[in-house]
Amino acid sequence: MTDFEPRDPDFERKVRDSFARQRVMSTLGATLTRVAPGLVEITLPHRVDLTQQHGYLHAGIAGTIADSAGGYAGFSLMPPGSTVLSVEYRVHLLAPARGERFVARGRVVKPGRTLTVCELEVEAIEGERRTRCVIGTQTLICLPEAADRPAG
Amino acid sequence: MTDFEPRDPDFERKVRDSFARQRVMSTLGATLTRVAPGLVEITLPHRVDLTQQHGYLHAGIAGTIADSAGGYAGFSLMPPGSTVLSVEYRVHLLAPARGERFVARGRVVKPGRTLTVCELEVEAIEGERRTRCVIGTQTLICLPEAADRPAG
Amino acid sequence: MTDFEPRDPDFERKVRDSFARQRVMSTLGATLTRVAPGLVEITLPHRVDLTQQHGYLHAGIAGTIADSAGGYAGFSLMPPGSTVLSVEYRVHLLAPARGERFVARGRVVKPGRTLTVCELEVEAIEGERRTRCVIGTQTLICLPEAADRPAG
Amino acid sequence: MTDFEPRDPDFERKVRDSFARQRVMSTLGATLTRVAPGLVEITLPHRVDLTQQHGYLHAGIAGTIADSAGGYAGFSLMPPGSTVLSVEYRVHLLAPARGERFVARGRVVKPGRTLTVCELEVEAIEGERRTRCVIGTQTLICLPEAADRPAG
Repeated sequence: MTDFEPRDPDFERKVRDSFARQRVMSTLGATLTRVAPGLVEITLPHRVDLTQQHGYLHAGIAGTIADSAGGYAGFSLMPPGSTVLSVEYRVHLLAPARGERFVARGRVVKPGRTLTVCELEVEAIEGERRTRCVIGTQTLICLPEAADRPAG
Repeated sequence: MTDFEPRDPDFERKVRDSFARQRVMSTLGATLTRVAPGLVEITLPHRVDLTQQHGYLHAGIAGTIADSAGGYAGFSLMPPGSTVLSVEYRVHLLAPARGERFVARGRVVKPGRTLTVCELEVEAIEGERRTRCVIGTQTLICLPEAADRPAG
Repeated sequence: MTDFEPRDPDFERKVRDSFARQRVMSTLGATLTRVAPGLVEITLPHRVDLTQQHGYLHAGIAGTIADSAGGYAGFSLMPPGSTVLSVEYRVHLLAPARGERFVARGRVVKPGRTLTVCELEVEAIEGERRTRCVIGTQTLICLPEAADRPAG
Repeated sequence: MTDFEPRDPDFERKVRDSFARQRVMSTLGATLTRVAPGLVEITLPHRVDLTQQHGYLHAGIAGTIADSAGGYAGFSLMPPGSTVLSVEYRVHLLAPARGERFVARGRVVKPGRTLTVCELEVEAIEGERRTRCVIGTQTLICLPEAADRPAG
């Protein structure tokens, strides 16, 4: 499916567990719809209570699912016992985020022991029509020997 | 307060009206806490249902309030009868977004007839402690003779 | 070759003429090695006088040829009688820029009447080995009825 | 002068030595005009052989001196025996880079053991007039126990 060999054979369960702990994802109604080594998709149905002033999905919410998709794409390739943080991300807003649902895709471009670079995109889907409304890139850092859960 | 002269004397009402139509802002619990020419602040109290896997505010939500703060900072300087769209934004995540509340600040660096560039930041506030957890920059476009509301 | 239809039938000559006026390109020793609608490549042979402290091509010089490649990819799709300016660009430095020569590629992702978004990359070539050392994205603006040459 | 305490008492000499090994800086005619902890300035006189098609300094060359200024601002705070690499940088081109000379300034926003974030700017100077033509941000990585010179 992808060109990468995960260093953690249990990568899918690890990603799904961590996603389930991202409380904001269930608040938004986003679900994890694909987990492959170095490639993750998150799907968000349209909701009027997530819109900006023109009635489209707020760019920041599109950025939120893109950031998580990229973060988990990177996390899927990291070794057991580590966690991931976004260092920075940037998004271009190519078209209004108008659709029935949105699919955010994060794809690792360059995995690394410390830093990983991902490409991000969000597609808006309306019936048969798919419009790429966001593209972006992201830098992640792998924190070895750090728990992927609250410190408490 | 700021160095800019608004071209719309009614800039504050215009910004507040538009913010009130950003449905996502009330969904998140964010409020507009400062509107000056070229400078806007949005405040978001901490909520556990907006967190990522370590229990901090999700970077994308910090990005969402930063994007809106910048967008409205730019909008405050745009002429009557126009609307604003984000072209792109990028954020650096300097520190975990941990605090009782978060203040996003957008500040116009370079206003323009078509494009406006803003600086973004988010501070996490915990008692007396203020930590700058996000910095970023953003490009906005002014759409003249376009309504700042749903087309419907 | 690409999916785009140029609005200027004379796009190749226009791009080549403008490139020839970018004095910095001949100073660096860069040449235009591919011009297609929405896709431009610039090739730069390695030169020790363009290196950074470790002896690799300076990231900024890789960024310079990437910025021009993207700018001309966008310019190739712009109407006659207009000119192009970079609004912003960003580059990720994936690997040291070490090689005999470097090929920068700019590809239009989203053309627009006012704004165009491009993807950028630079490959380092050493014998048979090609290493993608830079990726990035860029926003361009089309200035209609503006000369693509010095005002003087 | 700045708020940072360097971890290398010999930071200024270290920065000046490394800058002197960046062959591209002397090729461009750029000099190091300020070195303080976390703050570095590089000055470049205007040269017609560094221009783009409208006769202004090429955005990529402005980006090159900004990238080096930020890199050395970060390097000034890194411990002895380490070297620095740019991970990514982005620049907004606020105004045409037109002037007698250009001053690039890199300023550390957040120093870190592994990653450092800097703000970048370039001013164009023409007589008494100073125009901020570039702003940007940059991520650097500190490589401990790595030589700041060619491997050979």
